[in-house]
Amino acid sequence: MPVPTVSVIIPAAGAGRRFAAGGWRPHATPEQPPSKVLALLAGRPILAHTLERFAAVDAVAEIIVAVAADRVDQARQMFGHTFRPGRRLLFVAGGAERIESVAHALEVTDRSTELVAIHDAVRPLIRPAVIEEALRVAIERGAAVVGRPVDHTVKSVTAGRQVRATVPRQELWIAQTPQVFRREVITEAYARRHDIVGAVTDDAQLVEGMGREVFMVLGDAANLKITTPEDLRLCEALLAAGWPFEG
Amino acid sequence: MPVPTVSVIIPAAGAGRRFAAGGWRPHATPEQPPSKVLALLAGRPILAHTLERFAAVDAVAEIIVAVAADRVDQARQMFGHTFRPGRRLLFVAGGAERIESVAHALEVTDRSTELVAIHDAVRPLIRPAVIEEALRVAIERGAAVVGRPVDHTVKSVTAGRQVRATVPRQELWIAQTPQVFRREVITEAYARRHDIVGAVTDDAQLVEGMGREVFMVLGDAANLKITTPEDLRLCEALLAAGWPFEG
Repeated sequence: MPVPTVSVIIPAAGAGRRFAAGGWRPHATPEQPPSKVLALLAGRPILAHTLERFAAVDAVAEIIVAVAADRVDQARQMFGHTFRPGRRLLFVAGGAERIESVAHALEVTDRSTELVAIHDAVRPLIRPAVIEEALRVAIERGAAVVGRPVDHTVKSVTAGRQVRATVPRQELWIAQTPQVFRREVITEAYARRHDIVGAVTDDAQLVEGMGREVFMVLGDAANLKITTPEDLRLCEALLAAGWPFEG
Repeated sequence: MPVPTVSVIIPAAGAGRRFAAGGWRPHATPEQPPSKVLALLAGRPILAHTLERFAAVDAVAEIIVAVAADRVDQARQMFGHTFRPGRRLLFVAGGAERIESVAHALEVTDRSTELVAIHDAVRPLIRPAVIEEALRVAIERGAAVVGRPVDHTVKSVTAGRQVRATVPRQELWIAQTPQVFRREVITEAYARRHDIVGAVTDDAQLVEGMGREVFMVLGDAANLKITTPEDLRLCEALLAAGWPFEG
């Protein structure tokens, strides 16, 4: 099977409020709130790590990063226009919500790629081999989500922290990213996004809402999402210990 | 409020099959399978770290560790009879299942303590402050479980890895340990353990099954359960980075 080509969308327009609450303020001015994806991880911006992981995958034809509107120029200056020879790197203005940032980015993707992968900017430890497995499943099945089976006891809990019940966990998975889709699948899902009632917490949910099949791909526990300064410390520790581990 | 006293039960009789499958074999002989809790973490057995975390809590009156029957003598030689002056450390033979190991250990606890805390031997990064908070909630409410709210998208997935649905996560928590109970609560729950139908994955489930209230206590994401060699690397990395992190 020939390797499919993929457009990668990285929503990175969030202000990182929980992160800033932890005291992190670089790149912030009175006019510009801090940008979490520019926080340093092992000496380089988080986003630089994430871009490198995708650059290691041959099928990646382009990467579109959605950043806050007033960050587009700065991002272009920091990261340039290519992530490797012949592949384009675009920075576009994101929307107020993640879903609108992805919608904007989707509009500027190259229509000739067969797959669209959407990945959290703040998951810098994704392994290229996991990305490639997600591409393979997505081209065959239409939609693939990287994740992990839940291997802990799960409780349903009230707002007052009282346990209501232990939830059967045999069938539960935690969804991470990337989430990869055949182009026509994600395009249709985003065109219909205003039809969905209730909170949408990931892209696959839009596809599920259309009644289309979505399949899970086994990822790594170390594919952490950096939300707090403690998460950043954890990623630093993993890189210092030699992640990705061999054997 | 005076600090209650607590008996700590640490089930550690499991053979660590997933761990051994990763190539880890120290302390193993043809007659004795490897013992995961004796694997070295930052140069010392995992169990030594776990014991130290509980030793840092003044309310802990005794620690009962349930190990494989043919490991009791070895454990006593390695760890002795006290974890700090005046507090006893007992090693007892565990059962074939975790629930039977805890039941055996419960029988030998000192009846004069007010609380019983049950903690996975392979969660060595528990913070003493979290243990103490669990003791406070347990003495007030009867039963307290350390855990974390689920902050990821959760999917219900078939055995064939197809997504069935996105599960509302607002009310879901992951249960860790310690799980702490007033003595009369856990004693009754264990006396009735044979009445429970289906899989029991944690001790609180037995208490929930009696219709008694159980409350969650917020723990750390770093309170990892070491199941695979990769988990051990992750804990090593956290300790090397200075866990528990300050500020």
